[in-house]
Amino acid sequence: MALTDLSADELRDFAATQRAAYDDLVGKGLKLDLTRGKPSAAQLDLSEELLSLPHGHLAADGTDVRNYGGLTGLAELRGIFAELLGVGTDQIVAGGNASLTMMSDTLLYHLFHGGVDSENPWGVEESVKFICPVPGYDRHFSLLEHYGIEMLTVPMTPDGPDVAAVQALVADDPSIKGMWIVPTYANPSGAVCTLEVASALAAMDTAAPDFKIFWDNAYAFHHLTDEEAKSADILSLAEVSGHPHRPIVFASTSKITFAGAGVAFLAGSTETIAWYTGHLAKSSIGPDKVNHLRHAQFFGDADGVRTHMRAHRAIIAPKFEEVQRVLRESLGEHEVATWNTPAGGYFVSLDVLDGTASRVVELAKAAGVALTPAGASFPYGDDPRDRNIRLAPTMPPLDEVTQAMQAVATCVLVAAAEKLGA
Amino acid sequence: MALTDLSADELRDFAATQRAAYDDLVGKGLKLDLTRGKPSAAQLDLSEELLSLPHGHLAADGTDVRNYGGLTGLAELRGIFAELLGVGTDQIVAGGNASLTMMSDTLLYHLFHGGVDSENPWGVEESVKFICPVPGYDRHFSLLEHYGIEMLTVPMTPDGPDVAAVQALVADDPSIKGMWIVPTYANPSGAVCTLEVASALAAMDTAAPDFKIFWDNAYAFHHLTDEEAKSADILSLAEVSGHPHRPIVFASTSKITFAGAGVAFLAGSTETIAWYTGHLAKSSIGPDKVNHLRHAQFFGDADGVRTHMRAHRAIIAPKFEEVQRVLRESLGEHEVATWNTPAGGYFVSLDVLDGTASRVVELAKAAGVALTPAGASFPYGDDPRDRNIRLAPTMPPLDEVTQAMQAVATCVLVAAAEKLGA
Repeated sequence: MALTDLSADELRDFAATQRAAYDDLVGKGLKLDLTRGKPSAAQLDLSEELLSLPHGHLAADGTDVRNYGGLTGLAELRGIFAELLGVGTDQIVAGGNASLTMMSDTLLYHLFHGGVDSENPWGVEESVKFICPVPGYDRHFSLLEHYGIEMLTVPMTPDGPDVAAVQALVADDPSIKGMWIVPTYANPSGAVCTLEVASALAAMDTAAPDFKIFWDNAYAFHHLTDEEAKSADILSLAEVSGHPHRPIVFASTSKITFAGAGVAFLAGSTETIAWYTGHLAKSSIGPDKVNHLRHAQFFGDADGVRTHMRAHRAIIAPKFEEVQRVLRESLGEHEVATWNTPAGGYFVSLDVLDGTASRVVELAKAAGVALTPAGASFPYGDDPRDRNIRLAPTMPPLDEVTQAMQAVATCVLVAAAEKLGA
Repeated sequence: MALTDLSADELRDFAATQRAAYDDLVGKGLKLDLTRGKPSAAQLDLSEELLSLPHGHLAADGTDVRNYGGLTGLAELRGIFAELLGVGTDQIVAGGNASLTMMSDTLLYHLFHGGVDSENPWGVEESVKFICPVPGYDRHFSLLEHYGIEMLTVPMTPDGPDVAAVQALVADDPSIKGMWIVPTYANPSGAVCTLEVASALAAMDTAAPDFKIFWDNAYAFHHLTDEEAKSADILSLAEVSGHPHRPIVFASTSKITFAGAGVAFLAGSTETIAWYTGHLAKSSIGPDKVNHLRHAQFFGDADGVRTHMRAHRAIIAPKFEEVQRVLRESLGEHEVATWNTPAGGYFVSLDVLDGTASRVVELAKAAGVALTPAGASFPYGDDPRDRNIRLAPTMPPLDEVTQAMQAVATCVLVAAAEKLGA
């Protein structure tokens, strides 16, 4: 029965029962963590062969990968990920171990020098603004905040960012220079940006002639079901719309091979690639090509990556199913929370009663369950409705996911009962 | 006999002989390269074991190096290089594959946010200037140029930068925010910064309260003789002088293990380290700790690095000796060039007759010998006397070093004879 349908007495009884359950929880001395989207040891083990690769030190074209050079990255690895991302091999750069670094560099190059189609460096403008679909990825927001870029939010829908809201913002304000998107299995909503949404974003009129879409396709291949989402081909869509330099695509193997020792990629128009490497050349003589060769040998080809991702799915899909089961069985009837059922990615986005997310996180912490801070999925950490909680179930073993989620459910109910006046 | 002492007839005969030798050279169709300071394949082979390391994936403290995290780098590798660089383990960060990237990041953080002891971000100042000892490292200069920082030159002496010249500049101009130094076996002069010079630079009064010494100790362990230079302990010198945050130290294993797949280091006061990682955290979740563990296992300890560097010396010292032999035997008596005899590092700095360096490089190119562009060792590529040429003999096999240097000597003599009017 919905909590809001209970009588005052019933609600008081319900609250007492949940409070007792919560006190039991605290007594157990749990130490569980659902905070960050990290792969588990079992997932990392899938790539253990990397530790004894590469065989030899020569690339297919004879390059000695041990030495300096090759700013765009090793050709055979770029080839594999060009195929996977649906871009040309001249449209992709393989870099270091972090796409976040490539995003940061790209942002700084725009601020200092301007983009491929900028009249001026962004940094000379009075203000620079970015559109942030919410809920979204906290590190995207903290990067912008660190460099003084103002953030404007639009709602994230199940089909991607709310296009009408985006269009209304960008049409007249030339200081809005870009937007973030996690197009496939978004962090944390799990939304997949449809072809229609992607097409509209690629084609829309923007007051800024050098508007950029930072297309962070971090989970492009991270399917949890047989319905494997195909990412929209944003580079082609932008090109046919007459805005070839608008999207800059980011991806990495951080959640494919080793989270700390993978390879990151940047893709864009050939002009964007030349622009990026032109600036990068001032701070790098080339990426770690040994790690590129290591990855190329490990995967073999694009299908090698696809096969590898199915092994990940086998490990993590049961954890996501368990999150769903506990949420459904513990919270379903009470109608105090909604959540998504992601078909891929690393997160479940849980919306609790307005004004209770912080309390849920606080209660969970006191019971030994670490949750991402409430508000983390919003710019400046500010969730205006204080309702969103990001759950990351990949890292803990399955039995800990169960325990942690049961604890979360209890905390949600305790906080909801409090909120409703019990 | 010195060329300047020849009679007009003698000089004409000499020029004809050299010109004939040069024409012979051109006829040989050489394809030789003395441009960049890259390790040779034989040097890279010394570290081939790295390709099948690490054994396991756990650090000494139990960290799973495959996963995210650990922004300051793996403790055991930091320990080895803290000992080698003479700094505390809390004063050093291990990063990615390029110290150049750490230098660039450090510079950008200063421009955008200001340093640990800055009142304002450098970028809000009307102008920012750096002192560049010349000849110096071209990538230092192009980085500054790319970010609009004005460069002021001071002479590099055999003991390091000309302290009096530096002091005269920094005393009154608060827009001079920093300086470059390659303290040990400088690129390209081979100079070693003495304790006295380092001490003076650490202690000097600067108009800018947040003056920085970018102490690029790229060749700290790259000895060519038994007289192994000890780098001045710049962090301690600065601390006792009351300027603990002035030096920022950079180093890497690029010319110790793999040029493209080594590990870079940044060292400074603990406050500097906190400042650096605070900014870095916005663009990175952590460095490639697998590569850190790989290197830690490969070296074992600091002595492992020292032993390894002796194996490098055995390979490259004969090439440096050959450069000296050819220069001495071909140019010595003619008194048209001077050069250094480095006790370490990667370069020989050759000064030819004023106004002839560009011509020498042009002649060499036409004869199939690639040399670093004349002027490369000066800001904006502008050698005011057009006399300096940087020679990098590590990469080619010994017999090619011989051929290339004989060709260079012939070009120097042809250009000198031309200059003297023959």
